[in-house]
Amino acid sequence: MERTMEMYLEEKKQFIDNALKKYMQALQVPPALKQSMTYSVEAGGKRLRPILLLASYEAFQKDITVALSSAAALEMIHTYSLIHDDLPAMDDDDYRRGKLTNHKAFSEATAVLAGDALLTYSFEIISKDDKLTAVQKAELIALLAESSGPKGMVAGQILDMEAEDKAITLQELERVHTLKTGELLRYAVYAGAYLGGATEKQLHALQLFASYLGLIFQVQDDILDVTGDELKLGKPVGSDALNLKSTYPKLLGIDGAIEKKEQYLLKAKESLQAAGIENSNLMDLAIYFGQRDY
Amino acid sequence: MERTMEMYLEEKKQFIDNALKKYMQALQVPPALKQSMTYSVEAGGKRLRPILLLASYEAFQKDITVALSSAAALEMIHTYSLIHDDLPAMDDDDYRRGKLTNHKAFSEATAVLAGDALLTYSFEIISKDDKLTAVQKAELIALLAESSGPKGMVAGQILDMEAEDKAITLQELERVHTLKTGELLRYAVYAGAYLGGATEKQLHALQLFASYLGLIFQVQDDILDVTGDELKLGKPVGSDALNLKSTYPKLLGIDGAIEKKEQYLLKAKESLQAAGIENSNLMDLAIYFGQRDY
Repeated sequence: MERTMEMYLEEKKQFIDNALKKYMQALQVPPALKQSMTYSVEAGGKRLRPILLLASYEAFQKDITVALSSAAALEMIHTYSLIHDDLPAMDDDDYRRGKLTNHKAFSEATAVLAGDALLTYSFEIISKDDKLTAVQKAELIALLAESSGPKGMVAGQILDMEAEDKAITLQELERVHTLKTGELLRYAVYAGAYLGGATEKQLHALQLFASYLGLIFQVQDDILDVTGDELKLGKPVGSDALNLKSTYPKLLGIDGAIEKKEQYLLKAKESLQAAGIENSNLMDLAIYFGQRDY
Repeated sequence: MERTMEMYLEEKKQFIDNALKKYMQALQVPPALKQSMTYSVEAGGKRLRPILLLASYEAFQKDITVALSSAAALEMIHTYSLIHDDLPAMDDDDYRRGKLTNHKAFSEATAVLAGDALLTYSFEIISKDDKLTAVQKAELIALLAESSGPKGMVAGQILDMEAEDKAITLQELERVHTLKTGELLRYAVYAGAYLGGATEKQLHALQLFASYLGLIFQVQDDILDVTGDELKLGKPVGSDALNLKSTYPKLLGIDGAIEKKEQYLLKAKESLQAAGIENSNLMDLAIYFGQRDY
């Protein structure tokens, strides 16, 4: 990774972490609930989704404070989805990012409620951000609910569950990932550009960019599950193979998966050119998404 | 119950049921998810919360179509909370309203996701209702998120869990119920009056009304768990005693609980008088909340 990109990611991560900390501190709620919510929000993570939102905003505007609530809300939604995904009834994971999962550190009931609370709080912080107009609030909330709800991420999770222990086609696999991973990335790119004042045509091209970004992200995730370093990843590798899950390497081989990733990167670049913002940090982020080793 | 009140409840229930049906039909999502969401949304229930919202709106305005999305969203939030509450890690209930609970009819994972989906969808339908202004959408979403999230209902659920198998004071008991049950009723009353154009002073008085309503609702719930008819209730009675849960009858005796309820009813009436709308259907609803036998 280039030195400048590394610094960019670190700088933006700080903004996000500070915003999240501020929102969590402002919460006056029962200690057990706050502790459990905060545990997962502060469990680390690269904050790639909210950074993507800020990068998309910055392709059009400078003062990112306007975009911080939408970015923090996105990270809260992502965090809630991980908490619920890790539950015994779902993926039944004991560790995430090298730390105990929420239900292991607290209890299953607390984890269910902490997830529900983060999901709900994410809408609250957008609806109350006085840097946004009412029109912006309504638009952002509609976007976030669509991307994360039954038409978006949750649909992807159901389809992912159904696809376990079952051979599916590349097309079906792409649909699962577009919903499960891609929808939140679409929100990130779209919300940032919308707040930045992008035109309809630019928003349209950026939606395409986001969908390729989601696929790049997922191919790399699958590749890392085969070739990754457990220590860097903070989770065991090879779990996809154990689960008999359909993955890119399984359907295309490792070389085929890498080739597929290159194709998606090319498409992503073309979409940014169509939006006229190929010089923004968005392309570097796409490349980073495809190269990350943890 | 008076005949007129019965007809009023039935008529409004129809409006809510139709609105819910419309919103569920509009959802283009994976069949397994839709089936599970719809199962619980259509599992019956008296729709008291959304009816309360409509009654509060009608104390000020006539055309209830403006209030239908906020009312349907409220019922979806209530439904999601029941689905998650019934999970094995939470109350571990197999039946609700005489039907299998969601995780029993489908699976635990599906129930977690159906709950998440309903919660998220509730914000989507408000944010996209073109009968509302952007200012109204933002205000309603802020209200709903506050009432149902970590500061409201979810806080009540955590406190309720902590209070199990533990003796708590009447004051602590009231706090749990105010959050767990009262907050959604507060949203109902407040959102309806806000959309209807109530003044600040009226909204303030109505918040008080709503808090007493929540307490009335809960005392009656506790009383029914001792004296209720299992067939009418569609659930076993006596479960509170088994759980060693703090309840009004346990703290005050049955007679004491009934007296407490009468006090709350008086307070509720005074709040409506302060708001100048004692002739609305709201008082009859409060009385009904305190008399219901199922």
